[in-house]
Amino acid sequence: MTVAFARRMEKIRASEIREILKITQQCEMISFAGGLPAPELFPVEELKQVAVRVLQEAGSKALQYSTTEGYPPLRRQIAARINRKFGTGVESDNILITSGSQQALDFSGKLFLDEGDVVLCESPTYLAALSAFKAYLPRFIAVPTDEDGMIPGALAEILRTTPRVKLLYVIPDFQNPTGRTWSLERRKALIELVNQYEIPVIEDNPYGELRFENEILPSLKSLDSKGLVIFTSTFSKTFCPGMRIGWIAADRRYIEKYVLIKQGADLHTSSISQMELSRYLDLYDFEANIQNIITVYRQRRNAMLAALDENLAGIINYTRPQGGLFLWVELPKHITAVKLLTECLKRQVAFVPGDSFFPNGGVEHTLRLNYSNMPEEKIRTGIIRLADAVKEYM
Amino acid sequence: MTVAFARRMEKIRASEIREILKITQQCEMISFAGGLPAPELFPVEELKQVAVRVLQEAGSKALQYSTTEGYPPLRRQIAARINRKFGTGVESDNILITSGSQQALDFSGKLFLDEGDVVLCESPTYLAALSAFKAYLPRFIAVPTDEDGMIPGALAEILRTTPRVKLLYVIPDFQNPTGRTWSLERRKALIELVNQYEIPVIEDNPYGELRFENEILPSLKSLDSKGLVIFTSTFSKTFCPGMRIGWIAADRRYIEKYVLIKQGADLHTSSISQMELSRYLDLYDFEANIQNIITVYRQRRNAMLAALDENLAGIINYTRPQGGLFLWVELPKHITAVKLLTECLKRQVAFVPGDSFFPNGGVEHTLRLNYSNMPEEKIRTGIIRLADAVKEYM
Repeated sequence: MTVAFARRMEKIRASEIREILKITQQCEMISFAGGLPAPELFPVEELKQVAVRVLQEAGSKALQYSTTEGYPPLRRQIAARINRKFGTGVESDNILITSGSQQALDFSGKLFLDEGDVVLCESPTYLAALSAFKAYLPRFIAVPTDEDGMIPGALAEILRTTPRVKLLYVIPDFQNPTGRTWSLERRKALIELVNQYEIPVIEDNPYGELRFENEILPSLKSLDSKGLVIFTSTFSKTFCPGMRIGWIAADRRYIEKYVLIKQGADLHTSSISQMELSRYLDLYDFEANIQNIITVYRQRRNAMLAALDENLAGIINYTRPQGGLFLWVELPKHITAVKLLTECLKRQVAFVPGDSFFPNGGVEHTLRLNYSNMPEEKIRTGIIRLADAVKEYM
Repeated sequence: MTVAFARRMEKIRASEIREILKITQQCEMISFAGGLPAPELFPVEELKQVAVRVLQEAGSKALQYSTTEGYPPLRRQIAARINRKFGTGVESDNILITSGSQQALDFSGKLFLDEGDVVLCESPTYLAALSAFKAYLPRFIAVPTDEDGMIPGALAEILRTTPRVKLLYVIPDFQNPTGRTWSLERRKALIELVNQYEIPVIEDNPYGELRFENEILPSLKSLDSKGLVIFTSTFSKTFCPGMRIGWIAADRRYIEKYVLIKQGADLHTSSISQMELSRYLDLYDFEANIQNIITVYRQRRNAMLAALDENLAGIINYTRPQGGLFLWVELPKHITAVKLLTECLKRQVAFVPGDSFFPNGGVEHTLRLNYSNMPEEKIRTGIIRLADAVKEYM
């Protein structure tokens, strides 16, 4: 067969790791590999009520085509919530409802990236953002980053010397995969630099509300004085992921373009799902539900850190996230995470090797652990198994 | 502001017509402009039952992340249905669930098209397919088409002389916008030619089940001997559009690639919506519901044709579709449809001018009429208003 795919398909490849991890769906496996929220906290009963109520109230309107921008009450609710939580200062016109925040990443690539354009990002960074952007054939430049965020001097130097920087992609709160949170100073420094070079910034914030201690730090969007920050988030981690509802909050000049892209991409996000979510926010105590999630995830993070401290302190390095779903491990340099994974799978414990989170690869002694989807007892057991495997390698 | 968008955004522009037609949402307006299915036929009561039942049976699983390929029972149901209805001979592994069939068009552009590649299509053709493909900067070549479909000699000549033909896009059943259906001979001739040149074909079939008379003709997919036909359809016209559930049925070598694209684009289509639809198909008589839709739409088409025959015969030309949602009008050459629309809006009747359905524009005396979303009495009134406006122009 001679059928030719587009050149971008050379960059969009099946992940070997993904294939390996398919076996982690077995029952006996303790998987720290996924990024699944805890399903026992999904509002199943409430959604039964809400689903019936929406169909009673809106009837066939809930099932008809609807506007690309999204359900107006939901756009208002989102704008009000993020203004309150993240100081974003947006109106409902600044909101586009997307089919999960993954879609916001794909659309951002489509909106900004020609082949060969440069995307600046943290390293490591969210691997599915890399996948989304890769479809538009950019070049990634990893900005040197420490536990407080991108290093301003390094970012300044890159911006000064690199042509065709079109986009800056960051996850300032409880980053995936590291769990790190940017300091306020670093946030301010970033805004100063992007203002100077007028580079749009994707602030990807799926985890920001899940903070276990201290106060939420000002979002980049709240510090944004030139309308350059495109804030994207999702209900996947605070409500449920199965419905695929996320959003983009940005300046109107961006939203207008994103709307055109969404028209061509899928017309609009499910009318009935948007109405159900909106009605849920009206009728139930969403903030209390988020508090429940925080309480449970904090316990699970504590359990994971305690087990790591007990079994692997001094042998490996790991982050101590103040929120979110993940922590990040650096193994001794001679241990390759992919090989360790093979060993761990025999012991019925799984994780994601860190290499694929690096835009240009090449860091093989790292791995990501998820703690949101496993009860504390299993977390302890899983970390003990991981420790056994690591120690065998030492 | 100097922020630079990707070059493709020059092709993705707001439609002036779309802006004009926003006023058609007023109550008094009789709109033949949209492509909305009749909402009074949506299974609202059944969905109330199904929504509760899915959450009872599947619980939080209905709300969790799920596989990119789609909900396995739904993939099986779709494969079985299209094999029965369209003779497609596929298995559930050949099905990818998409967020409406619009998404299948976007993904097809992403999968096949590099800048400057050629897409062959009918002319006129579905305008949102053009929008979806335009994001990948192809060149469109309109294949000469008559009431029976693409003209094989013309298609052969284009294939013989044109480099970089990557994709052929067709709607063989009750085409949008013309309502025309390809003859069996033309279907066979197309397959012979694409087999010879090994060009993948998107067979877009959203309306095929809504046939008012005679038998469904063999789909291109059923005639496909080299696995080149990518069949795409949707539940938007037979169930409801608001849930955004469509599918691609294709050879595994394509499906694998589409799955990778979907991972990067939105991870998966709503878990709960897929489960609800699947349960609906299990529990209710979907075929009877389709028969209801057919009965109603047939009456509406009849009403529109009768009103056109009575008021505009000999003045304008129009198609007599055997199914689907649309018919197509050719005005006398000196009447510009956009100007006629302005006149019609004053009389509270709307349609879509035909020009934007032509990949390369330039045919201004045509228009599309939708009959699915309006009761017969209003159809008669609307056509009389249209006739008044046309006659004023004569």
